[in-house]
Amino acid sequence: MIFGKVTGTVVSTQKSDSITGTKYLLVQLCDHREKLKNGYIVALDLVGAGPGEMVIIAQGSSARQTDMTYQKPIDAVIAGIVDLVEEDGVTVFSKS
Amino acid sequence: MIFGKVTGTVVSTQKSDSITGTKYLLVQLCDHREKLKNGYIVALDLVGAGPGEMVIIAQGSSARQTDMTYQKPIDAVIAGIVDLVEEDGVTVFSKS
Amino acid sequence: MIFGKVTGTVVSTQKSDSITGTKYLLVQLCDHREKLKNGYIVALDLVGAGPGEMVIIAQGSSARQTDMTYQKPIDAVIAGIVDLVEEDGVTVFSKS
Amino acid sequence: MIFGKVTGTVVSTQKSDSITGTKYLLVQLCDHREKLKNGYIVALDLVGAGPGEMVIIAQGSSARQTDMTYQKPIDAVIAGIVDLVEEDGVTVFSKS
Amino acid sequence: MIFGKVTGTVVSTQKSDSITGTKYLLVQLCDHREKLKNGYIVALDLVGAGPGEMVIIAQGSSARQTDMTYQKPIDAVIAGIVDLVEEDGVTVFSKS
Repeated sequence: MIFGKVTGTVVSTQKSDSITGTKYLLVQLCDHREKLKNGYIVALDLVGAGPGEMVIIAQGSSARQTDMTYQKPIDAVIAGIVDLVEEDGVTVFSKS
Repeated sequence: MIFGKVTGTVVSTQKSDSITGTKYLLVQLCDHREKLKNGYIVALDLVGAGPGEMVIIAQGSSARQTDMTYQKPIDAVIAGIVDLVEEDGVTVFSKS
Repeated sequence: MIFGKVTGTVVSTQKSDSITGTKYLLVQLCDHREKLKNGYIVALDLVGAGPGEMVIIAQGSSARQTDMTYQKPIDAVIAGIVDLVEEDGVTVFSKS
Repeated sequence: MIFGKVTGTVVSTQKSDSITGTKYLLVQLCDHREKLKNGYIVALDLVGAGPGEMVIIAQGSSARQTDMTYQKPIDAVIAGIVDLVEEDGVTVFSKS
Repeated sequence: MIFGKVTGTVVSTQKSDSITGTKYLLVQLCDHREKLKNGYIVALDLVGAGPGEMVIIAQGSSARQTDMTYQKPIDAVIAGIVDLVEEDGVTVFSKS
């Protein structure tokens, strides 16, 4: 999985997946210290992530391994909200 | 999923997928603000997207999770037409 | 799917897939206007593509969604021969 | 599979996979001689890897082919701890 | 599939796949003319490839489509040993 930061939402009324009750989030990629990278993806929210939260993203067919995304054309989901990242014994990220 | 803009069509009469009733679209990759990138892919249209529309593309095996593409050698589909992208509380793209 | 141009063949007698009746083609990647890129892949031919033809390539597990490649360790197939590419209303490639 | 070095842990209480009894590890990519690269991923630990150990990582749907990760949104696992790497007849890495 | 050259072996006693009777090979990526590239992967050997041999590698879920790798966390296998590569009618690689 990779790290990203939720920065917005993507609205699509004409879509093929017939998924309701959740939404597409705009996620900017970042490193494990929350430093933003030059890249964005659209990910389906599975965990109730909000703007500004650092998340981990599962991609490819792994994104379909949930009740909500089973057999849907979804290739990226937010798999978890990051609370804390520890590197070499030091906390390098902590959710505020 | 990633963003792209429909810029044309690709015709292939000698193909292996036996899919009818839809077509291959030429899609130029773009960012979430519709700024074009230097890359193209061929995607099967699932939603009736037209030239100039900004779309989201699902890739890999996720592209086969529909009735039309089930068990076909398709690795990219247009999963939705983008109506609106909001970033940090500001609308950065709106379908005209 | 991505674009490529058939430039040769790859012979492997000691292989794991037990596929007969078709062959591995050497494919150089190209853009939608047939401009060659600096990259090659090996793809199984499903459509009878010949040297010099521009093709579309399906990768990943999508490459196994045919009778011939089902449950074989194949991650790239030639899914179609390109007849024509139209971009912004202009024909930018036409099979000669 | 690719090489990485375990450098820390990632804590996520709000996640979608309901996996317990193991944890997400922070893994910095490296080459076969343990030289660190400029990239990190989050991988589920399947083998009891510890900080500082060089590991091999399986990605994509291959990451779900275990009892623990079956049908979970996991796209990277630590598949093994590297004991030794031999290149051109010379031992270039040995676990200390 | 892509080209690589077998340059060594990788030993891992603590691994998750319970595969016996074969081994992980260290493979340096190369082009179709056997020119080495700056990248290595670890691939499971399915065909009895030896040091110095040029091989083709299948990646992703395609790597699991064999009796030996079925439902194992393996994302790269050596699918064949290359005997000959022909490009534009000229033999550009021949196994010595």
